[in-house]
Amino acid sequence: MDSDKIEGRQVDSTRSPRFSGVTTFARLPHTKDLSGVESVFMGIPFDDGTVFRSGARFGPKGVREGSLLLRPYNPVMKVRPFEVLRMVDYGDLDPVPGYIEETFGRVEAELTRVMRKGLVPLICGGDHSITLPVLRSFNRLYGKLKLIHVDAHADCWDKHFGMSYGHGTVFRRASEEGLIEDNETVHIGLRGSLYSDRDLRDIEGMGHRVITMDEVESDGIDDVITEIERCIGSSRSVYVSFDIDSCDPSIAPGTGTPEVGGLTTREVMRLIRGLVRFKIVGFDLVEVSPPYDVGGITSLLAANIFYEVASVIAVSKGGKDFGT
Amino acid sequence: MDSDKIEGRQVDSTRSPRFSGVTTFARLPHTKDLSGVESVFMGIPFDDGTVFRSGARFGPKGVREGSLLLRPYNPVMKVRPFEVLRMVDYGDLDPVPGYIEETFGRVEAELTRVMRKGLVPLICGGDHSITLPVLRSFNRLYGKLKLIHVDAHADCWDKHFGMSYGHGTVFRRASEEGLIEDNETVHIGLRGSLYSDRDLRDIEGMGHRVITMDEVESDGIDDVITEIERCIGSSRSVYVSFDIDSCDPSIAPGTGTPEVGGLTTREVMRLIRGLVRFKIVGFDLVEVSPPYDVGGITSLLAANIFYEVASVIAVSKGGKDFGT
Amino acid sequence: MDSDKIEGRQVDSTRSPRFSGVTTFARLPHTKDLSGVESVFMGIPFDDGTVFRSGARFGPKGVREGSLLLRPYNPVMKVRPFEVLRMVDYGDLDPVPGYIEETFGRVEAELTRVMRKGLVPLICGGDHSITLPVLRSFNRLYGKLKLIHVDAHADCWDKHFGMSYGHGTVFRRASEEGLIEDNETVHIGLRGSLYSDRDLRDIEGMGHRVITMDEVESDGIDDVITEIERCIGSSRSVYVSFDIDSCDPSIAPGTGTPEVGGLTTREVMRLIRGLVRFKIVGFDLVEVSPPYDVGGITSLLAANIFYEVASVIAVSKGGKDFGT
Amino acid sequence: MDSDKIEGRQVDSTRSPRFSGVTTFARLPHTKDLSGVESVFMGIPFDDGTVFRSGARFGPKGVREGSLLLRPYNPVMKVRPFEVLRMVDYGDLDPVPGYIEETFGRVEAELTRVMRKGLVPLICGGDHSITLPVLRSFNRLYGKLKLIHVDAHADCWDKHFGMSYGHGTVFRRASEEGLIEDNETVHIGLRGSLYSDRDLRDIEGMGHRVITMDEVESDGIDDVITEIERCIGSSRSVYVSFDIDSCDPSIAPGTGTPEVGGLTTREVMRLIRGLVRFKIVGFDLVEVSPPYDVGGITSLLAANIFYEVASVIAVSKGGKDFGT
Amino acid sequence: MDSDKIEGRQVDSTRSPRFSGVTTFARLPHTKDLSGVESVFMGIPFDDGTVFRSGARFGPKGVREGSLLLRPYNPVMKVRPFEVLRMVDYGDLDPVPGYIEETFGRVEAELTRVMRKGLVPLICGGDHSITLPVLRSFNRLYGKLKLIHVDAHADCWDKHFGMSYGHGTVFRRASEEGLIEDNETVHIGLRGSLYSDRDLRDIEGMGHRVITMDEVESDGIDDVITEIERCIGSSRSVYVSFDIDSCDPSIAPGTGTPEVGGLTTREVMRLIRGLVRFKIVGFDLVEVSPPYDVGGITSLLAANIFYEVASVIAVSKGGKDFGT
Amino acid sequence: MDSDKIEGRQVDSTRSPRFSGVTTFARLPHTKDLSGVESVFMGIPFDDGTVFRSGARFGPKGVREGSLLLRPYNPVMKVRPFEVLRMVDYGDLDPVPGYIEETFGRVEAELTRVMRKGLVPLICGGDHSITLPVLRSFNRLYGKLKLIHVDAHADCWDKHFGMSYGHGTVFRRASEEGLIEDNETVHIGLRGSLYSDRDLRDIEGMGHRVITMDEVESDGIDDVITEIERCIGSSRSVYVSFDIDSCDPSIAPGTGTPEVGGLTTREVMRLIRGLVRFKIVGFDLVEVSPPYDVGGITSLLAANIFYEVASVIAVSKGGKDFGT
Repeated sequence: MDSDKIEGRQVDSTRSPRFSGVTTFARLPHTKDLSGVESVFMGIPFDDGTVFRSGARFGPKGVREGSLLLRPYNPVMKVRPFEVLRMVDYGDLDPVPGYIEETFGRVEAELTRVMRKGLVPLICGGDHSITLPVLRSFNRLYGKLKLIHVDAHADCWDKHFGMSYGHGTVFRRASEEGLIEDNETVHIGLRGSLYSDRDLRDIEGMGHRVITMDEVESDGIDDVITEIERCIGSSRSVYVSFDIDSCDPSIAPGTGTPEVGGLTTREVMRLIRGLVRFKIVGFDLVEVSPPYDVGGITSLLAANIFYEVASVIAVSKGGKDFGT
Repeated sequence: MDSDKIEGRQVDSTRSPRFSGVTTFARLPHTKDLSGVESVFMGIPFDDGTVFRSGARFGPKGVREGSLLLRPYNPVMKVRPFEVLRMVDYGDLDPVPGYIEETFGRVEAELTRVMRKGLVPLICGGDHSITLPVLRSFNRLYGKLKLIHVDAHADCWDKHFGMSYGHGTVFRRASEEGLIEDNETVHIGLRGSLYSDRDLRDIEGMGHRVITMDEVESDGIDDVITEIERCIGSSRSVYVSFDIDSCDPSIAPGTGTPEVGGLTTREVMRLIRGLVRFKIVGFDLVEVSPPYDVGGITSLLAANIFYEVASVIAVSKGGKDFGT
Repeated sequence: MDSDKIEGRQVDSTRSPRFSGVTTFARLPHTKDLSGVESVFMGIPFDDGTVFRSGARFGPKGVREGSLLLRPYNPVMKVRPFEVLRMVDYGDLDPVPGYIEETFGRVEAELTRVMRKGLVPLICGGDHSITLPVLRSFNRLYGKLKLIHVDAHADCWDKHFGMSYGHGTVFRRASEEGLIEDNETVHIGLRGSLYSDRDLRDIEGMGHRVITMDEVESDGIDDVITEIERCIGSSRSVYVSFDIDSCDPSIAPGTGTPEVGGLTTREVMRLIRGLVRFKIVGFDLVEVSPPYDVGGITSLLAANIFYEVASVIAVSKGGKDFGT
Repeated sequence: MDSDKIEGRQVDSTRSPRFSGVTTFARLPHTKDLSGVESVFMGIPFDDGTVFRSGARFGPKGVREGSLLLRPYNPVMKVRPFEVLRMVDYGDLDPVPGYIEETFGRVEAELTRVMRKGLVPLICGGDHSITLPVLRSFNRLYGKLKLIHVDAHADCWDKHFGMSYGHGTVFRRASEEGLIEDNETVHIGLRGSLYSDRDLRDIEGMGHRVITMDEVESDGIDDVITEIERCIGSSRSVYVSFDIDSCDPSIAPGTGTPEVGGLTTREVMRLIRGLVRFKIVGFDLVEVSPPYDVGGITSLLAANIFYEVASVIAVSKGGKDFGT
Repeated sequence: MDSDKIEGRQVDSTRSPRFSGVTTFARLPHTKDLSGVESVFMGIPFDDGTVFRSGARFGPKGVREGSLLLRPYNPVMKVRPFEVLRMVDYGDLDPVPGYIEETFGRVEAELTRVMRKGLVPLICGGDHSITLPVLRSFNRLYGKLKLIHVDAHADCWDKHFGMSYGHGTVFRRASEEGLIEDNETVHIGLRGSLYSDRDLRDIEGMGHRVITMDEVESDGIDDVITEIERCIGSSRSVYVSFDIDSCDPSIAPGTGTPEVGGLTTREVMRLIRGLVRFKIVGFDLVEVSPPYDVGGITSLLAANIFYEVASVIAVSKGGKDFGT
Repeated sequence: MDSDKIEGRQVDSTRSPRFSGVTTFARLPHTKDLSGVESVFMGIPFDDGTVFRSGARFGPKGVREGSLLLRPYNPVMKVRPFEVLRMVDYGDLDPVPGYIEETFGRVEAELTRVMRKGLVPLICGGDHSITLPVLRSFNRLYGKLKLIHVDAHADCWDKHFGMSYGHGTVFRRASEEGLIEDNETVHIGLRGSLYSDRDLRDIEGMGHRVITMDEVESDGIDDVITEIERCIGSSRSVYVSFDIDSCDPSIAPGTGTPEVGGLTTREVMRLIRGLVRFKIVGFDLVEVSPPYDVGGITSLLAANIFYEVASVIAVSKGGKDFGT
């Protein structure tokens, strides 16, 4: 983008067709100059933590493509999210393919540097393993965080083929490293087959609250939000990690370890909007794998989730507006 | 089709497999000889009014492919739609790529000629811009029409990149040209981000009733139909325009400007069947874009919507039958 | 698999990644040595009975791919299905392309041989025509069977282009041959257009109970299960035949004759789990056509249905366990 | 097509865009009224003779799609093929899925009826098994035929899984039934692995000439044509059967049993044009399988081969013209 | 890109993986600040001039994706093209969908403004119609241009469905408007069926030289280049317009009007490199249609053609270097 | 496979259709019992060494699918490769996603164990990084090896994003570790853009011979083979490493870092068959990435390359036979 960038100003799609130009998230300015910026879209294109299908390294590119249709005003949340937040597309943090620990170090270092500027990062994976260095960065600035985790899987396994790090061990490590408040951690949407019946009990043994997909289905989203609030309160900062495989394969086929029977689009939107009760300091959406997407619908959904999250944060900030 | 064409008689799929032969809508006869015909399937393969992904020019071909499974009897509506209506596949009206106004002129001229024969056209886009010349034709014969418009977008913008015509300005133009009754126009299914909070208010300022997707979701389809009836009454003729992007991307990925969170198949079917209360004089289904379809499911859905609409019209006509 | 095969022991996906190795159903051992085995996954890759899109001959290969994510423990049914049942992947029964009757003979012969070993076969089509030789085999051992048939179509037509056998005539033939108890046969999920209004009445005339998709939608799955129980009781053996086209095209696009408006994933899972009330002696899932699948979601769903059925049978057998 | 059909007149693509209208081969009139017609495009959509991937039942539909770009004048052959031949699209002959022998009977009967009108059929498979009933029809009118067979495989196996008919046994059966002149039969383009080294010797033992792909590659197409002429002379009638798998998978991926290392497009075109030396009385192109095609390139190639064959026959007929 | 942009410096792919970051052509800086810049990559995403399959509006996005693998040094041309030329990615010129003449006006205006800065634009379509406003811009600065046109089609038709402008009439208009030197215009690669035998004669009547694909095939690329030089000399400025459909569908399936039997990759590369004899002042590559591409190979090829053209221009400029 | 496995005996495809059964390489027995076995097909599904598109972890599964058409007899090499070599499908060696060095250790350990049984492994990647642990295993048994390396890239970079291992540094490491004879190492098929003009000189500085794609094109394959023989002699053992990206994207689109202008199928086959002059002790084919394949043509080609390599080794062993 050229020098006259104004944060939060998307390319005007009433003048320039959406298929025109270099692709950035929501057609926002792309810059690493963060003066005056309050929030960034940022990718971490690493997928070597996956245990099945890879491709999430193209997640940020996919979500950018999927975001081309986003317009400035959110009529449900009644807010212009990108302007209230003065948001830009930061670009991506560079990983090192094949070296998960080296990648974690580099990601943590650059992200910490960015976050010291006091902005809210909306992070796009990559596979779920990238949440660990992200939480380490947050921990440096915020100390222990409350965690809302939406996912088909708890990602609390102890081992990754005998090693420590992978996309299935991230929250076990986060707990061990003291990055999250175990008693204020909620996992939402778990479903599918397990290795053992101890799996869920172990997680609950760590102090985490598990809301399975069965509970979501029988109780409804409004009750789920109430339950989250009961578990973690609404006072202090919370981090939200959203794995796209929490969604049903029919609306999110483009992911590495899909499980049948997930969230519907309506449930996802209602869930995200319900987060307006909490003070979100960071957010990631992971596991979008464009090579397995069909018709770009997974990327489209992911882009819309980012949009709703940005809206929620904007409204929380007091940014509710009533148009121009 | 050879000379012994009988209108409304589909090729018999118990004798000739569905994958056999030249593809026409529902395996109906293809002819431009309209004597004795009461309704036609007709394509308008124009997509240069699209502001994002094109491909709707192949919409009629796609819907014909998707219609190969349609059988003669509708057990829910209890009618044999193609026989009650004596329907054929007319083929397509030829557009001029790159010349939207010239296209409108040619479409309006040929369609008017066809309609003078007194039949009900079921029109397949093409992008939504084609509804404008269609409404102009209808206006010549019927005067101002009531309008039921099912769509994710209101298509009431004022400008198309500074110009008048495009798939996002069609109902603003229709209103200005006096083609539709503003006070008897209902938009159903609107959702997604907007340019400004004034967008919806402007439409309501035109006198139109907007039923957003949020309302559809919270009230249910039966209430939506009641509300439509309250708005437009059930006495005089109504035109129905159906944009496939009103449907959720999981059931209709093959379209140009998809929005997450749309109608489910069950809702669509219930909505269409509920239209039996109205006197439909014309119908279009637009924005099916086969290059973006996956597994042909969008075309399949679109073909079934045509089938239900034909059934509704057949029943309205008094054609309810109880089999052979 | 090498000689130290242990039935029901899947390859350990915490040691060997899911993308590693030769693909068998659920990473179970592949063997034709059935000593000690209580249940088998078995394919019948025949699709020449299809009247529209073929490709179901690759159904077993597709379902095996889709099953790679299945883990040992089912937390909803609280059972380790493959161990309780001591299950293996038997491989496929060989058909003769182009010769439906010859295929039926060969399939019936080999299946009867296998079944004499007293195990429960979980059979993967192929198109629905393969259920006929399967039922003939079952009839030799069990006599007449009760039938639960989940499908968009009743498959009770009298003729297949003037011939006897095809995927649309299977249950008419089964009835005529005395393979099923007509008064204890239930068809669930029927929908879509028909050839005539007599179609459904004819089926009911055969003594079968039809629960249409409309009924499923208005009554809900729990009532459907109650109604099935009312019709067929829960005492004697029942055979379950599941056509993947009973599911909605958005979750199961990979099939030959899709119909809009089918079962959702949640409904399917609830329906299958509800079958725990019955004594299932055989099961088939048919019509998965990988060439028409998108993103592998149909195969993934089908694999999960097999998993739930295996769980149901394991629990029925008294195999409910509480982990290791 | 309406009543004012003129054989050989394609829809004018300078007035009606190629994406407009019902799809027929080369946009020719579709009719079963053959008065005044000299040649027809005709499909036989049967694929149950395939031993690996099916889908050729959609071959005629695919080739029609691929033919939309064909224009009236062939500048290399200097002829307007469809006008010289007064050609139409006849539609398809109906097969019976699953019943290869019944299909053969129906195909032979209808084709014979058509051919009695004295026209040259250009036939589109379907799999290669359909050539057998076609040859039987020809045999009724012409007696034994010379045969030019372009294919990766000789299709001269003795058995099809123990049965007589399949796409790999067609020319063995044709030879046994006396449909072809064994000493005037040439197979061109054979390649790939075999069951045994006897395979080729057996064919030569039948008196057939085999020109392998290796020979084509080392000698060049011009020498191949000379060799064909040496083998079969140029005096009497010849039938040409062209399996699309003779072409390299890079130009013809959409087929059931692809073999690497086939003909290039240039070689195919040169080979077909070289056939102008022979008196072709019938032609088939088989094994186009659209579900396995990518980007429609196989159908596009196949449509162009039909175009060149029509041109060759038109020129042979004396139809060489020099434009309008 | 941030302020420390250095023209011609790509993102270093030995530090930042190619899948990381916002996508620009060859990972070059994206800026509209052209101070110090000598050449730009620039898209004109307009495809409403197409007469068959559209999608070229996504051409610039596709080519950017396809260019991610390009490295700084061209070992065949022995040059670092982007540095010698100090090149950037300018972004795209905005069209007006549906309004071809309005689009032409806007494109011509902005391009003229850019070109006044004295740089060489490498332009990415869009369909071939966009070459007309480009030539008009060039004409303002350079007067009449020599033209080298590589294409399967001459694009010299007189009418576009009765109108003036479309992707098939561009060089007829250019000739009439005096934008090109008719006697120094060469069309290379023509093939496929025509409307009439007059088509080619008409073009030659305009004074243009036509080198058909048949000639390319029989003479070889080296002779073609010699012939081009004979026709247009090597002294004055030349414009090169490259339609990707000149290439064979097997290497360039992603285009709107493919013709079988085109250039191979080796021929294309040899042809482009041979242009080093000429003084190229402008270049466009058109008709890449990503929705029809398979595996991204068309975009990859197109990106490499841009790379070779940039290399040719860099070398012509005296920029031949021998590494760093 | 059951206990009566006979090495080298493929499932008989004249009895069991190719689409039937569990998929193994060439339908060979799958076993880890290597008594009596002389050669194995073996996968190493690791792709975290890739710097662009991943997916090669599904390479072995893809190649197994692509191998279903392979028949027992190679008529060009006149040998029954799998029987002469008594070959089986060993399955895959398990990697650790995200841990390249740990993966290398595990692969080297298991492969060494297997190779101590004295057999020739035909190894299927995975990405090219897996060749390093393979060479380490070979080095333990054979000492330094001669190397024939067919690839678009030399894979001799010094660093992988600052680290040691990746798919671009494998032969630099192999040289440094003394695994290969630098003076008897030949790279064939190099092409595409480079980072610097020093790149090739550095490789030659290591003592390696580089035969670029330009040389292959101008000299022809026969001369290339002669040149290889001149460089490495034909006396001692040689290892062959084949990267599928040496092939042109039109025949091998399914790979991670494609480069335009590669080997044609005919050249590949001729090159492989020419290797009969050398004593091959090990072979790998890497970088087949099924998620990026189209129509399975890359996997089909790769499977055929394995077949030709097995044939070459069989013939070298004296196994030339003349059928059964």
